[in-house]
Amino acid sequence: MQFKFYIGTKVLFGKGCVAENKAEFGKYGKRALVVTGRHSGKASGALDDVIAVMDGLGIEYRIYDRVENNPSLDNVKEGGDVARDFKADFIVGIGGGSPLDAAKAVAVLAVNDMDPLELYNNSFKNKPLPLLAIPTTAGTGSEVTPYSILTRKDKQTKMSFSSEDIFPKVAFLDARYTESMSYSVTVNTAVDALSHAVEGFLSRRSKAVSDILAVESIRLFGECSRSLLENSIDFETREKLLYMSTLAGMVISHTGTTVVHGMGYPLTYFKDIPHGKANGLLMEEYLKFNYGYVKEKIDKVLGLLGLRDIEEFGGVMDKLVGKGLAISEEEIDLYSSIAVQQKSTSYNIRNVTKDDMVRIYRDISLKAAN
Amino acid sequence: MQFKFYIGTKVLFGKGCVAENKAEFGKYGKRALVVTGRHSGKASGALDDVIAVMDGLGIEYRIYDRVENNPSLDNVKEGGDVARDFKADFIVGIGGGSPLDAAKAVAVLAVNDMDPLELYNNSFKNKPLPLLAIPTTAGTGSEVTPYSILTRKDKQTKMSFSSEDIFPKVAFLDARYTESMSYSVTVNTAVDALSHAVEGFLSRRSKAVSDILAVESIRLFGECSRSLLENSIDFETREKLLYMSTLAGMVISHTGTTVVHGMGYPLTYFKDIPHGKANGLLMEEYLKFNYGYVKEKIDKVLGLLGLRDIEEFGGVMDKLVGKGLAISEEEIDLYSSIAVQQKSTSYNIRNVTKDDMVRIYRDISLKAAN
Repeated sequence: MQFKFYIGTKVLFGKGCVAENKAEFGKYGKRALVVTGRHSGKASGALDDVIAVMDGLGIEYRIYDRVENNPSLDNVKEGGDVARDFKADFIVGIGGGSPLDAAKAVAVLAVNDMDPLELYNNSFKNKPLPLLAIPTTAGTGSEVTPYSILTRKDKQTKMSFSSEDIFPKVAFLDARYTESMSYSVTVNTAVDALSHAVEGFLSRRSKAVSDILAVESIRLFGECSRSLLENSIDFETREKLLYMSTLAGMVISHTGTTVVHGMGYPLTYFKDIPHGKANGLLMEEYLKFNYGYVKEKIDKVLGLLGLRDIEEFGGVMDKLVGKGLAISEEEIDLYSSIAVQQKSTSYNIRNVTKDDMVRIYRDISLKAAN
Repeated sequence: MQFKFYIGTKVLFGKGCVAENKAEFGKYGKRALVVTGRHSGKASGALDDVIAVMDGLGIEYRIYDRVENNPSLDNVKEGGDVARDFKADFIVGIGGGSPLDAAKAVAVLAVNDMDPLELYNNSFKNKPLPLLAIPTTAGTGSEVTPYSILTRKDKQTKMSFSSEDIFPKVAFLDARYTESMSYSVTVNTAVDALSHAVEGFLSRRSKAVSDILAVESIRLFGECSRSLLENSIDFETREKLLYMSTLAGMVISHTGTTVVHGMGYPLTYFKDIPHGKANGLLMEEYLKFNYGYVKEKIDKVLGLLGLRDIEEFGGVMDKLVGKGLAISEEEIDLYSSIAVQQKSTSYNIRNVTKDDMVRIYRDISLKAAN
């Protein structure tokens, strides 16, 4: 037996957790940069709660709310410059995966004068600023991971960098902040979380300790799937989805993701497909591709979800994220060339070649045509 | 849903983990105080491995190997003085629960000039020195908890103090270090770990997230129980026991312990019964006492252990730690008076009065007479 288990983040879960744990904000200094997107911080109510706490504690803050969807290196460079100008002691990230991942990069760049490309060295001269993370979606898991996924225009895809030093110090999980998500964002992000749990469970790098968390996360998705399918998502379901997505984040903190993420990134980069949806489109073919290699575990996944077989799983995904996606042969060739180079691809339990990827993308395109 | 989840410790598990992760030692400074008992550090081989790593890294060290069984406040005060004199940058704790808990107190006292009684304020002016923890038993879980249990002569019992700042930074779990334990120490410490998992699972403070870990820990004990009963403990079983004890430590990091620990401490303080054995003696009556209040969960515990009922569970404990213990009426009155004041007692799912404790101690004494 050999494993590492480490979650460098204190998770505080529950309605009102920001106000109830305001002391956490006081631990990291007197000047904070809030990193968020244009809308989610405000719409979710999280930004107001954070401001109220910081005003109460006499913490000075500036708000950087220019995080793009799928943030670029230029974007986080700008955020880092703002943090440095403001002399921030710590960073508060509010939003979905994009703002949280950007906040991690900003925390590094604020105290390291370097080209953002050097983030991918995964080690930094100066320790990143402490980060408090407040998710407003239930999917990313970024609030409990040492990863930041940024768009690499030079590589025409998204790529993650990683360091134990970018684990958020604290994650505040209040499901009320996820209530402002539209139905489609709710579904896409939930499917993203499911892909984390399933990919982590089936990964070459899975361990007994990550499997415990993956199993519980998948089981919880199963408990929520009817609500998701029927668009009848009450607060209790929102809490379950937030909890399951954080568990799934803890899973990939140990296993990484695999080929679903590797192949999903080009769909987001070139076709602007939301990240969770991209993963959902790929999941059925992914399970079919791996079935002979990890049959028992895939059967367990299906059992936890209350599903008979992979076809039925595919039917659920079709309803949640749509049935396939038209992709041209030229696109398929390009995406496969890029995806096969992703590190996450190498963690898949079955070796994946470019030709395998071509076949999988084709199947998805074919599905859209039928 | 409301919970906190936090393990401030990076767990590195596997044969050779100290040497393989020597870089961890280099992160915390150039001067280390090794805190250990007179025997276990050496006998286990852990001390030699640590010295080799520190020599290789040019880390200067001193060894404080005077930790007593069930260390007193005077004992940790002495260790703190040694750390301060040596100007230690960090502490390495090697051993069972006693050295690891002592190391936590030493880490605090090394940088805080205070009466050790003030440890029980649970907050310290200066941040404790970083602690690396290397267990040589599979029971305590101290390597992943924010607790230190010390003997309070003034209160005639053992009492824990607690702070997130005393989580070990890193726990090195190499089952080879547990091979030097005698059979009785192996059994007693394994039963201690089981009591952590079961008490945490049945605690008033249990949460979904701690229950996942508790269930896995109890299940693993069940996998090992035949080997324990038959004294046929191979390396694979040692690894399972070490893993299950660490999971159980993560459980009590969130739930605390309950009445078994509260009532076990006087048996250790006054009658010198090893801690795990004391817990084992109490477990059957504890389950009977709580059965009406948490029936479903106790049935689950029994199921995970492959046992029919509480009587069969009691039979296993009898074989492992012995059948009951003679305790006089005067002793029972004294122990109950002390145990009822323990904080852990208040976390029991069913309210426990002094009279309840008197009855439970009597049953244990009666068992010894039969």
